[in-house]
Amino acid sequence: MATHTWTTEPAELLRVREGFSLADVDADAHPGFDGDKSSGTALLEEREQRLDELQERLFAASRVGDGHDAVLLVLQAMDTAGKGGIVRHVVGGVDPQGVDFAAFKAPTEQELAHDFLWRVEKRLPRPGMIGVFDRSHYEDVLIGRVRALADESEIERRYDAIIDFERRVAASGTRIVKVMLHISRDEQKERLMERLERHDKHWKYNPGDVDERMLWDDYMDAYQTAFDRTSTPEAPWYVVPADRKWYARLAVQELLIDALEDIDPQWPLADYDVEAEKKRLAAS
Amino acid sequence: MATHTWTTEPAELLRVREGFSLADVDADAHPGFDGDKSSGTALLEEREQRLDELQERLFAASRVGDGHDAVLLVLQAMDTAGKGGIVRHVVGGVDPQGVDFAAFKAPTEQELAHDFLWRVEKRLPRPGMIGVFDRSHYEDVLIGRVRALADESEIERRYDAIIDFERRVAASGTRIVKVMLHISRDEQKERLMERLERHDKHWKYNPGDVDERMLWDDYMDAYQTAFDRTSTPEAPWYVVPADRKWYARLAVQELLIDALEDIDPQWPLADYDVEAEKKRLAAS
Repeated sequence: MATHTWTTEPAELLRVREGFSLADVDADAHPGFDGDKSSGTALLEEREQRLDELQERLFAASRVGDGHDAVLLVLQAMDTAGKGGIVRHVVGGVDPQGVDFAAFKAPTEQELAHDFLWRVEKRLPRPGMIGVFDRSHYEDVLIGRVRALADESEIERRYDAIIDFERRVAASGTRIVKVMLHISRDEQKERLMERLERHDKHWKYNPGDVDERMLWDDYMDAYQTAFDRTSTPEAPWYVVPADRKWYARLAVQELLIDALEDIDPQWPLADYDVEAEKKRLAAS
Repeated sequence: MATHTWTTEPAELLRVREGFSLADVDADAHPGFDGDKSSGTALLEEREQRLDELQERLFAASRVGDGHDAVLLVLQAMDTAGKGGIVRHVVGGVDPQGVDFAAFKAPTEQELAHDFLWRVEKRLPRPGMIGVFDRSHYEDVLIGRVRALADESEIERRYDAIIDFERRVAASGTRIVKVMLHISRDEQKERLMERLERHDKHWKYNPGDVDERMLWDDYMDAYQTAFDRTSTPEAPWYVVPADRKWYARLAVQELLIDALEDIDPQWPLADYDVEAEKKRLAAS
């Protein structure tokens, strides 16, 4: 048994609401959980079973009858904030058959020829699945804005397009959980330095990471604007302090559990005659 | 530390060679490992780290420079043999970002309008990935043969088409590991009965499972023919006794480790000036 548990649900505490200010978030804090790394890790392990059971029910419900529910976890963050660790240590705790993982890199020429949501639409999770977006359509209003990759009116258009898109996805039965992992500028420096210091981490470093780092404040502004414009009841944003990896993992795990509990998937009833099948099987 | 380890590599012991006879395989045996369930489970956990590290190296090698290597695990079996458990407990031990999972169901109308390898080609793992096929193109010479879903000359053609296809895939850098999980007819009956007896397992049962079970001997003949015709040096078959789930998982884990050790992926060298980047980062 874990010695500590949540004092307040992260779905409540970390949700972006009217008046939210990213500048006021302490990336080093661990709101709602007053334990330390070791009790946090213990709770992560304990809650893995709950997440696992809920995921299996979600999957089962989609296989028989008319289960249309799915979950979409959108992960956005500055480099090194720990998206990979979330995928590995939180999502990695459930059955890989129930996970649709999609990483969005810089768009290809073909993707650029389409509307920015074209490639995203194709990767939406099917019913019964937990979809995970490692970066997403939000890049098109983050780096898109900071680097002026599209003109201003196009960027403006995108916020509304995102709201319409996400409303439609939610209406089709997909719970959308949008997470920004928030690290401090100092913590990022340390983590990038570690990648430079370890030969088994060199492949994770890209000189472009420092270029983007130089534009830190512009990125924070772009995130704030994205929150202001696109945190809706159907697709809320959560800002998760991420200087402590154990806390960020614990919080995202709980956000996923919360979304699944909201769906409350049930084991589907047999669509065949169970007793008749027992007899047929016994005779076979 | 696990108390028991492999006495002989499963890649050696379980490989289908000239003269192999499926009828002679004891589904309840645990060749090459003389421990029991508890020591087997301990070893599974211990070896997970090795698999995990090799997978990360494979992934890293593909991101920088010219790593073209990938692994493709093909899983075939009669119903209930434990494909799902392999995915969950063996493949589930590595980073989900490095796994491409594809389940092949009965082909759609669109798929049927193409050659049987069309849908398979599309799901081949990209460089750096571990691809997992839950069922595969072999269905087209298994149920395809047993149920006469295509005429005899077409089924005959497919064996050679498969050999050519797999040779091409192997030549492009993908290690192909084809596994048949072999359970006994009695064990299958027990496992199906359990699905009928537990309401949380009803969704896993399908009356069609018993229909296929009635054709057990025809399926074993179709498997034997597939082994005779398609176990090649580039894409060998392994028959894994699977009445004991713990053994099957341990064996498939080791087959994956063996394939990855054969690739021997290395951490890629930095394609940037590490010392210059340290200075640039420090100043940022």
